[in-house]
Amino acid sequence: MLSSNRNLPDTPGPGPLDGLLVVDFSRVLAGPFAAMMLADLGARVIKVERPGAGDDSRGYGPFLDGRSLYFARVNRGKESIALNLRDPGDLVLARSLAARADVLVENYRPGVMERLGFGPAALLAASPRLVYCSISGFGHSGPWSQRPAYDAVVQGMSGIMAITGVEGGARVKPGVPVADLAAGLYAFGGITSALLGRASTGRGTHLDIAMYDATVSLLEGAALSFLATGTDPGPIGNAHFSIAPFDTFRCRDREITICAANDELFAVLVTALGLPGLAVDARFAGNAARHAARDELKAELEVVLLTADAELWLDRLDLAGVPCGPICSVAEAVGSEQARARRMVIDAGGLPGPGNPVKASGYADPAVRRPAPELDQQGSALRAEFGPSPRSAGPA
Amino acid sequence: MLSSNRNLPDTPGPGPLDGLLVVDFSRVLAGPFAAMMLADLGARVIKVERPGAGDDSRGYGPFLDGRSLYFARVNRGKESIALNLRDPGDLVLARSLAARADVLVENYRPGVMERLGFGPAALLAASPRLVYCSISGFGHSGPWSQRPAYDAVVQGMSGIMAITGVEGGARVKPGVPVADLAAGLYAFGGITSALLGRASTGRGTHLDIAMYDATVSLLEGAALSFLATGTDPGPIGNAHFSIAPFDTFRCRDREITICAANDELFAVLVTALGLPGLAVDARFAGNAARHAARDELKAELEVVLLTADAELWLDRLDLAGVPCGPICSVAEAVGSEQARARRMVIDAGGLPGPGNPVKASGYADPAVRRPAPELDQQGSALRAEFGPSPRSAGPA
Repeated sequence: MLSSNRNLPDTPGPGPLDGLLVVDFSRVLAGPFAAMMLADLGARVIKVERPGAGDDSRGYGPFLDGRSLYFARVNRGKESIALNLRDPGDLVLARSLAARADVLVENYRPGVMERLGFGPAALLAASPRLVYCSISGFGHSGPWSQRPAYDAVVQGMSGIMAITGVEGGARVKPGVPVADLAAGLYAFGGITSALLGRASTGRGTHLDIAMYDATVSLLEGAALSFLATGTDPGPIGNAHFSIAPFDTFRCRDREITICAANDELFAVLVTALGLPGLAVDARFAGNAARHAARDELKAELEVVLLTADAELWLDRLDLAGVPCGPICSVAEAVGSEQARARRMVIDAGGLPGPGNPVKASGYADPAVRRPAPELDQQGSALRAEFGPSPRSAGPA
Repeated sequence: MLSSNRNLPDTPGPGPLDGLLVVDFSRVLAGPFAAMMLADLGARVIKVERPGAGDDSRGYGPFLDGRSLYFARVNRGKESIALNLRDPGDLVLARSLAARADVLVENYRPGVMERLGFGPAALLAASPRLVYCSISGFGHSGPWSQRPAYDAVVQGMSGIMAITGVEGGARVKPGVPVADLAAGLYAFGGITSALLGRASTGRGTHLDIAMYDATVSLLEGAALSFLATGTDPGPIGNAHFSIAPFDTFRCRDREITICAANDELFAVLVTALGLPGLAVDARFAGNAARHAARDELKAELEVVLLTADAELWLDRLDLAGVPCGPICSVAEAVGSEQARARRMVIDAGGLPGPGNPVKASGYADPAVRRPAPELDQQGSALRAEFGPSPRSAGPA
């Protein structure tokens, strides 16, 4: 079903996408991240960069030994070729790459690839089996289609900042680039779904993934609350839009999270805290009642929690089976024994980066992965492999 | 390649996953969300619920006409059967469902499905082509494997709360359930990737997706900054870990986002603000210098921005092509003309919910989708379809 093969010496263990050929015209984050997921799972990914500076993100820190960790993180395992699509020779090579690819990924503003002769209509006409994935700020349709966007612009417009932060406080952007990454993850699943569809129908497709759609789709409780009531939700603090108790709570030394998302867990929680009366208190009978009275409930729980340190409560609630936890720093999270056991920090060409969360039995989950390429590192080899062959000029 | 077919009268237009049979043993959010993505793209998804109350999330608000929007949002398009896996007859039916499925999704704590006789080892031994997807708080390996978890617990432990919020302020949880949804999205892409792998190898797999892995993998700049320097990053406010200017900025009436992620955009930005000197200012030469001096740069830009209202600046920067935007409420985002044009609010059985961000040419993106099921709504029909057939007792 997959149209290409690879026998490079630095091939990782086979993944589920082994044999897939991906041409990655994308830059910075959402597109490269989606294509990296395909590479992590075994696909061969060829990154096309502009000559000279290449992907902008080669200039984004943090740097280690002069190399960008930002670039390395989302381009590991890829090959690089520098192509100027306004040069006729390079254009022929780019067309040859696209013609032989299973998947093309790009994240230019809608219209840019068309002007280069690489729009989805032209490429799908030439290669009907191609899965052509566009990722853009607002999508290839609708009145905002031509707006330029980066992650923060989309986060701001998606409503996610309006619900993040404490009531009455400043609007806060989540500390991770969730608009880029959510779009990348939808693209990853969309591409693999489209390849499954192709296996049935023989036809590729144009995937049109918008960072805005992706981020709006994450609003979940906040969006549902607005759709149900017409009331515009404000910042939720650390509480939950539908469930209580499901929040952070102050202990004597610091805050912890506690999530008791059903009646059984609520009864276990209040018993473990020495407040068994709350389990039969009419104010807190059922999740809906607890959510409506969540401030009152939080205050009652904190009276007890504030009498001892977080460690004592976490131990006691763990023992009882109540979901709870500390609030960890990045160093604690990335450096945790669980992250280590799960290979969530890997090495790619001597640079550390996050591992692959898709763990699949029967496939390798290597702790050492192939590096991100230098600009045009595989340029000559790729020109030889995909360029016009001298043999093709002679008789077959 | 896909082992099942459907010819129900309420079948939506074919999607890329048409013909796929998914059995969904999952509850609440991450698992149901992953399975819903498969349903949205055409798969037939059969949700197995416990008799009596069914999925906990049937009790989560908001409610419309007594129906949970929470449940409806992530279970649309599915069929429901109530099965008690401790009842021998129901167990036979569940085994029959699993034996005929392409995909099984579950999000119990590791070990629970094993104790029910439905662990991945047993099911993959019986059905080597099955893609068995487990989603759990911390994964099926590592020292924290048995910790119970909901979204807020994982968000707190993943480091994401430590970097969200203003410097010196409280630790803030992003207002969306990003741990659940990121795990669901990795599961979605992992499942479809595994199905592609199965098409090549003939073998299924056990996917082991952890909400913790998924959330740690999103830390991006914060994690890279820690890995590069060993310094534990604190809250980043609305700034970016690697790029500047890439932040919120105060205008006379309110804040806007501005993202100038390369030298060209920076020059265009400062020219549009009437500060062309900054483009050749040595303090701001190159992204790395701008990022190091980002507080100083922000102050210089705000001196000008504070002289007029947001609308003027957004118009001017839009015209110049600088990515920027307002900070919108949930009502503004969900109700926007772009969300409408992109069908990002759909109707499922009379209840509104977010649309599907995976837009694929050649496949339908219906604005009206099949509803989430009542508990055991398709129970009788599914018992007839998957139960022991009277004919199978007679001669073939």
